[in-house]
Amino acid sequence: MTQKYVYSFAEGGADMRTLLGGKGANLAEMTRAHLPVPPGFTITTEACHTYFRIGSRMPVELEQQYTAALNRLEQQTEQTFGSEDKPLLVSVRSGSVTSMPGMMDTILNLGLNDATVRGLAKLTGNDRFAYDCYRRLVQMFGSVVLGIDGSEFETRLHRLKSRLNVEQDSDVTAEGWQSLIEDFKDCIGRRAGREFPQNVCDQLRMAVEAVFKSWHNPRARVYRKLNRIPDSQGTAVNVQSMVFGNMGEDCGTGVLFTRNPATGEDMLFGEYLINAQGEDVVAGIRTPLPIETLKHSMPVVFEQLAAAAKQLERHYKDMQDIEFTVQNNRLYLLQTRGGKRNAQAALKIAVDLVKENVLAKQEALMRIEAAHLDQLLHRGLKEEAVKSVLATGLAASPGAAVGQIVFHPDKAVEWRKQGKRVILARPETTPEDIQGLIAAEGILTSRGGLTSHAAVVARGMGKPCVCGCESLRISLEDQTMTAGDAVIREGDWVTLDGATGRVIAGEIPVSEAVMTEELSQMLAWADELRTLKVYANADNPQDAETARRFGAQGIGLCRTEHMFFSPQRLPIVREMILAESREARQASLAKLLPMQEADFRDMLAVMEGLPVTIRLLDPPLHEFLPNLEELQQKLVRMTYEQEGTGDEQAEVKRMIRQVRSLHEANPMLGQRGCRLGIVYPEIYDMQVEAVFRAVSACMDKGIDVQPEIMIPLVGHASELKLLREMVDRIAEQVLGKDKSRDCRYKVGTMIEVPRAALTAHQIAVHSDFFSFGTNDLTQMTLGYSRDDAENKFMAHYMDRELLPNNPFQVLDTEGVGRLIDMAVSQGRAVKSKLKTGVCGEHGGDPESIAFCHGAGLDYISCSPYRIPLARIAAAQAAVQQQPAEQEEQTAALVV
Amino acid sequence: MTQKYVYSFAEGGADMRTLLGGKGANLAEMTRAHLPVPPGFTITTEACHTYFRIGSRMPVELEQQYTAALNRLEQQTEQTFGSEDKPLLVSVRSGSVTSMPGMMDTILNLGLNDATVRGLAKLTGNDRFAYDCYRRLVQMFGSVVLGIDGSEFETRLHRLKSRLNVEQDSDVTAEGWQSLIEDFKDCIGRRAGREFPQNVCDQLRMAVEAVFKSWHNPRARVYRKLNRIPDSQGTAVNVQSMVFGNMGEDCGTGVLFTRNPATGEDMLFGEYLINAQGEDVVAGIRTPLPIETLKHSMPVVFEQLAAAAKQLERHYKDMQDIEFTVQNNRLYLLQTRGGKRNAQAALKIAVDLVKENVLAKQEALMRIEAAHLDQLLHRGLKEEAVKSVLATGLAASPGAAVGQIVFHPDKAVEWRKQGKRVILARPETTPEDIQGLIAAEGILTSRGGLTSHAAVVARGMGKPCVCGCESLRISLEDQTMTAGDAVIREGDWVTLDGATGRVIAGEIPVSEAVMTEELSQMLAWADELRTLKVYANADNPQDAETARRFGAQGIGLCRTEHMFFSPQRLPIVREMILAESREARQASLAKLLPMQEADFRDMLAVMEGLPVTIRLLDPPLHEFLPNLEELQQKLVRMTYEQEGTGDEQAEVKRMIRQVRSLHEANPMLGQRGCRLGIVYPEIYDMQVEAVFRAVSACMDKGIDVQPEIMIPLVGHASELKLLREMVDRIAEQVLGKDKSRDCRYKVGTMIEVPRAALTAHQIAVHSDFFSFGTNDLTQMTLGYSRDDAENKFMAHYMDRELLPNNPFQVLDTEGVGRLIDMAVSQGRAVKSKLKTGVCGEHGGDPESIAFCHGAGLDYISCSPYRIPLARIAAAQAAVQQQPAEQEEQTAALVV
Repeated sequence: MTQKYVYSFAEGGADMRTLLGGKGANLAEMTRAHLPVPPGFTITTEACHTYFRIGSRMPVELEQQYTAALNRLEQQTEQTFGSEDKPLLVSVRSGSVTSMPGMMDTILNLGLNDATVRGLAKLTGNDRFAYDCYRRLVQMFGSVVLGIDGSEFETRLHRLKSRLNVEQDSDVTAEGWQSLIEDFKDCIGRRAGREFPQNVCDQLRMAVEAVFKSWHNPRARVYRKLNRIPDSQGTAVNVQSMVFGNMGEDCGTGVLFTRNPATGEDMLFGEYLINAQGEDVVAGIRTPLPIETLKHSMPVVFEQLAAAAKQLERHYKDMQDIEFTVQNNRLYLLQTRGGKRNAQAALKIAVDLVKENVLAKQEALMRIEAAHLDQLLHRGLKEEAVKSVLATGLAASPGAAVGQIVFHPDKAVEWRKQGKRVILARPETTPEDIQGLIAAEGILTSRGGLTSHAAVVARGMGKPCVCGCESLRISLEDQTMTAGDAVIREGDWVTLDGATGRVIAGEIPVSEAVMTEELSQMLAWADELRTLKVYANADNPQDAETARRFGAQGIGLCRTEHMFFSPQRLPIVREMILAESREARQASLAKLLPMQEADFRDMLAVMEGLPVTIRLLDPPLHEFLPNLEELQQKLVRMTYEQEGTGDEQAEVKRMIRQVRSLHEANPMLGQRGCRLGIVYPEIYDMQVEAVFRAVSACMDKGIDVQPEIMIPLVGHASELKLLREMVDRIAEQVLGKDKSRDCRYKVGTMIEVPRAALTAHQIAVHSDFFSFGTNDLTQMTLGYSRDDAENKFMAHYMDRELLPNNPFQVLDTEGVGRLIDMAVSQGRAVKSKLKTGVCGEHGGDPESIAFCHGAGLDYISCSPYRIPLARIAAAQAAVQQQPAEQEEQTAALVV
Repeated sequence: MTQKYVYSFAEGGADMRTLLGGKGANLAEMTRAHLPVPPGFTITTEACHTYFRIGSRMPVELEQQYTAALNRLEQQTEQTFGSEDKPLLVSVRSGSVTSMPGMMDTILNLGLNDATVRGLAKLTGNDRFAYDCYRRLVQMFGSVVLGIDGSEFETRLHRLKSRLNVEQDSDVTAEGWQSLIEDFKDCIGRRAGREFPQNVCDQLRMAVEAVFKSWHNPRARVYRKLNRIPDSQGTAVNVQSMVFGNMGEDCGTGVLFTRNPATGEDMLFGEYLINAQGEDVVAGIRTPLPIETLKHSMPVVFEQLAAAAKQLERHYKDMQDIEFTVQNNRLYLLQTRGGKRNAQAALKIAVDLVKENVLAKQEALMRIEAAHLDQLLHRGLKEEAVKSVLATGLAASPGAAVGQIVFHPDKAVEWRKQGKRVILARPETTPEDIQGLIAAEGILTSRGGLTSHAAVVARGMGKPCVCGCESLRISLEDQTMTAGDAVIREGDWVTLDGATGRVIAGEIPVSEAVMTEELSQMLAWADELRTLKVYANADNPQDAETARRFGAQGIGLCRTEHMFFSPQRLPIVREMILAESREARQASLAKLLPMQEADFRDMLAVMEGLPVTIRLLDPPLHEFLPNLEELQQKLVRMTYEQEGTGDEQAEVKRMIRQVRSLHEANPMLGQRGCRLGIVYPEIYDMQVEAVFRAVSACMDKGIDVQPEIMIPLVGHASELKLLREMVDRIAEQVLGKDKSRDCRYKVGTMIEVPRAALTAHQIAVHSDFFSFGTNDLTQMTLGYSRDDAENKFMAHYMDRELLPNNPFQVLDTEGVGRLIDMAVSQGRAVKSKLKTGVCGEHGGDPESIAFCHGAGLDYISCSPYRIPLARIAAAQAAVQQQPAEQEEQTAALVV
């Protein structure tokens, strides 16, 4: 049996997305809902697979099938493809399964040639229009199908307009277009080494192949990588009869969002251009009109559009992004899809749809892209710091971004790699700039509207963006940006406010986001649904307070060493490390004791009623000492340039000796964590004493404290046994027997050395909880030093797809995850109530949180600002992973 | 029911070793074999456990039971404990389950007091003897039971002899001893704060307790740790009626080995002293007579002794170490046990016993301590280098040792820790010196015989030892050793030849051992029994030749980077690394290609017919570059001291820049192994090309080659897939299709990153073999950087018994071993014939080899000199781990 490669729009439906791509499936769905869709057909993703499988050749059956479909289209439209009389014109568009805006290529007006153009002119009585359409086809065909640089055509168009002395495309006459067409054809002949095909069937075949091939173009690959879309999906191709928005003043084309994609407000939101074709809107070449004005210019069309919008939104249970064209006052819908939105809008839309009884809570929750919440919760300018605004553009994607300005995407990537924060400024952006957009903190353009490439992509990424800021002059040549008298040069600091569209010179401090009503609502629903607890990593009372405000259910990681780095304490810490006897060391520790005690007391008080996990000193001691190279340079200056006294020189020498003696070849695998605590017991003794003194003070005040002492870097049960005994001994010493029993503190360990996971049954005997330190566990399980790998081979690996993700961002479930699974099941076999959690950075990553839920952990711990995100992600995991029968019940409820 | 804590010798037997200790069990066994053993009884190890369990108190039942046993002993000997008439005297000796020579304490002549000593004098008609016995008791009791420093008594004895103006103890009169006894009692009163107990029952009780307590004395602990004897074993106590070797010239005492413990020769070997008690022989205070002379001095006793020796050897199926005493020409056996021997002797004895039909092959094999073979196979002096010999002592334990001389055990330990090789020289050694003996390469004493402490311990450890070298004067005070005019000071280099007893000044080169006939025989048996193959680690044809001579069945690890370090090549390697373009790098690699090709060609030719596993470049590139600090110092000199030209300075700066750019925070976890090969593909390309060119050259000559290309540091299957494709591609390029198929090369990977073991099922898909790189696997699984850990916390951990062993020497079976088990079973689930092996240093450790056998690996790979050891250890593992039913069959064969 021959495979069916081609479906007419009337044959498909929304459930055939995998086969027809998103666009094709939705065109079919709209067709079946009797919405005004120009007729057409879809070539399946299967056809694309076959095309590549047989060596980038067009399958014979495919050509036969689409020719048949084309015949049916001719009958339906009563036009003929290639006919001079009533020529059928079609668009050819890619349609991938997952939406990839701006990534794939489109060709319009296919079916025009030197003969049919005359037919079109006669039919429409509009020579100018017909030749404009033809020159667009030749131009698009030349660049998209034949791969000629688009600027070749742009230059020629520009030259023509100079020659004719006109400003606007619309001022070019039919003759002007005719001469440009000849010029373009000549250009194609010379650049592509072949003529522009006059045979319309050749045009179609070549266009379909070009769409297939575009699946593997570099910017599509980058986008897929960023969005984790498998390369194997392939693209469908949609062939649709043309309607024209550029036939005159009763024509137009536009883009409509059924709600405001920046705020989520329930209102029509969009833009259109009169007398234009689709690509004019998206490319941002002319600044379009807001959709509201359509109510006045074309009231009937506006009503039809508003009704269709509501219908589609209900139908898809989601905000839609609709492309439309008006031809001679008649509305056509060319596409609908789930609209990209930022986190804030996504939240509001989801919550509103629940209120409108369109969505169930669980469904609403699943609509939130947890990763974007993070952004939402971080950014906002401290208004009092804003002195003068350089310019104001369109508020295309909210949030504040601060960075050094660059004018080239490659520079953005390069600087980003060097750890700089950059703002990418461009007159407008194109899909080729995607890498630069990824690298930038925020995006600024001087041209283009709210649906321009820059705006759409930035919102998709949850990145601040100001676009269409026309009062700025951005010169790529001079690498400057001018606003009035002010000149901003590459590397200058700039702040963007995507919420208001302001562009501000300098670094403006950024303030916390406010918790919106919708977010609170969504979080409340998330809390009902999730089982995984969310703790915070916080090293001081301020962070703990923030964490509590964001809903932390405890502190999962308080890094006591962070308390050592403050300027008042560092000298004492150094004194302690450099001590040449145990007594001297103890004297320094005695000075640190009251300081740590105060830290812990405040921390415990803030977290009253909730657990606080205090990790004992972890990093190698040399991290607290000055850098060896700097010391040596100092010594050189002292030796050769008479700096410092003899005593000072002796001191530097002593310091060098000490730093050298603490030097390690691989500090990550060296004397740190509990190894320190065992070799220098007085350090941990002091820390534990400080904890229990703080506990005692709180208990005396009637504060309910739940301290959990966490021992880092345990690899052998013997280490934990020894240190646990120490903790118990000191607890009893400080608190006395009764209080120590009442306190019910816990003692547990980090599982961050692979051996600890492998011998978890032994370690669990001495442990009340396991906290997976997934940063270190990843380093050791993969053998990657994070400091080295991220800047060296890892980037290379990710480029070559040897690694699916950065394993320090997304948990490596196959390796590290397997160790976690083993440790949890072995640990619980020994202690069924063993508390388990994750306190690495993965605790704030949605995909990793889903793993943690699946692994049956009790909690994850993340930075305070990521708590809302984590709460959502944990709930999403609970919904997604619920057992099948429960799922059915839920489904029933939703219906 | 009351527990039975006491067994008379007539009740026990050799099979009750765990309960009665080795000595007690053997005394019982001898008693039952009607050999002349003075009667007595044994207090069980159970009693020792109970003693400690109830808080170091003597269980009441125990006291009752040994009193009853003592009564029976009185009846049997017709003597009475504490009687003035016919006093029963007893010895009290420890007896642990595993022999611990010199570790536990002994008290003789118990039952003497101011009254009974007169009875003994009357009974023997020998006042001098009786008081000598009594002063020995007081002395031993004072030091062993009451814990007074032995030198207190030695000083007093010395003072007495000076006062009496005599040289020998035997010249001291009864009155002399009497006054010494008073002196000793006075000393005890003052030092111990209590009187020497005149109540003989108190004496016995205190002595038994002292034996119990000695189980936990520091030197016993150290010995147990060294020999991995569990602390929980406990000791038995043997109470035996005294016989006296010091009653006159027809008395004596001695030690007999049934074969020569240094060579294994089938001859009586031992020493005795006329008119002496046992401790005189062992302590090495008087130099004893060789056992052969007993044939003349006491012919009847000699015949009895020889007959008993043969009987015991047959009975125990092993060479015995027998203690005997002759009292008035009557022979008594006081102890028998398996005799300590060195590796060479152990081999010869085992092989001889098989030939004599006493032992089965398997049993013989199990008698070999594989760890000692290593020593046997390394050491021997290059005779041509020996110019002048300082002195010659007794050849107590063979092998050559070269080191810097030290005179104090603590210094030996300290220097050893600094990485120095030391020779410990002492007038004589005592059990307190055990740590120093462990630390030393070789041991030298000026006093004591072949059964002195130093000799026994050194043989046990398989360490070279020269003892009783009386022509040397060793002054602990001056820290010098004088031989004639030559003065050797601390730190001077000395060479010992334990095989001949020579002491030589300076460092003499050491030569390979020759393979003895017995070793060859044992290895042949081992090869019959083992299933684990033994490969060698060899980086050049010379090592490969050695390996083949020692019986290597392949090369398991050829480290190609070792070929990069030769002086001619290093500059080219640096040029390659510093290359600023791929082209420049390829030019340098082109120079290295023919060199590597030649290396591989010779290697493959030497190993004709056997597999050669070639590992591609593994270490981080900066290992090939100069040290950063040295470069910086050079720059400082250039800058401030006008060294070098401007060009040279620029070159140094460039080098610094490059070294810095390659610098890594944790190179162990950085850009090395296959990560290098992926980021700089041209390096691996060159190496693989070199391999296949060499293969091609060999094939052309008709040489049967079995190359196996090994990819290091794989963590993700994607890495191996990529590199395997590269190898296959280059193989076909160089060899052509047909030859490449004929060649049947293998491509496999190291499993050294934990993730590789965890995802072995994925990696096995692309791999023909797994070679566990247990060095790195241990580093990453335990999170230990070997460079750092061994010198920092690990020593501390081992002292505190937080680690059972150095995990880099003995495989951590619970952690690393678990990963190996997982990887093998997952890998074989994908590929049932997957070849597996170990190529870390653990491949040469017997305990780790046993694990590898158990884990079902195909081979282990070790350094060439350890191959015989590995062959033996592999066979021992096969015998030990054979399934139960097979074991029964073997047992039947042996009987």
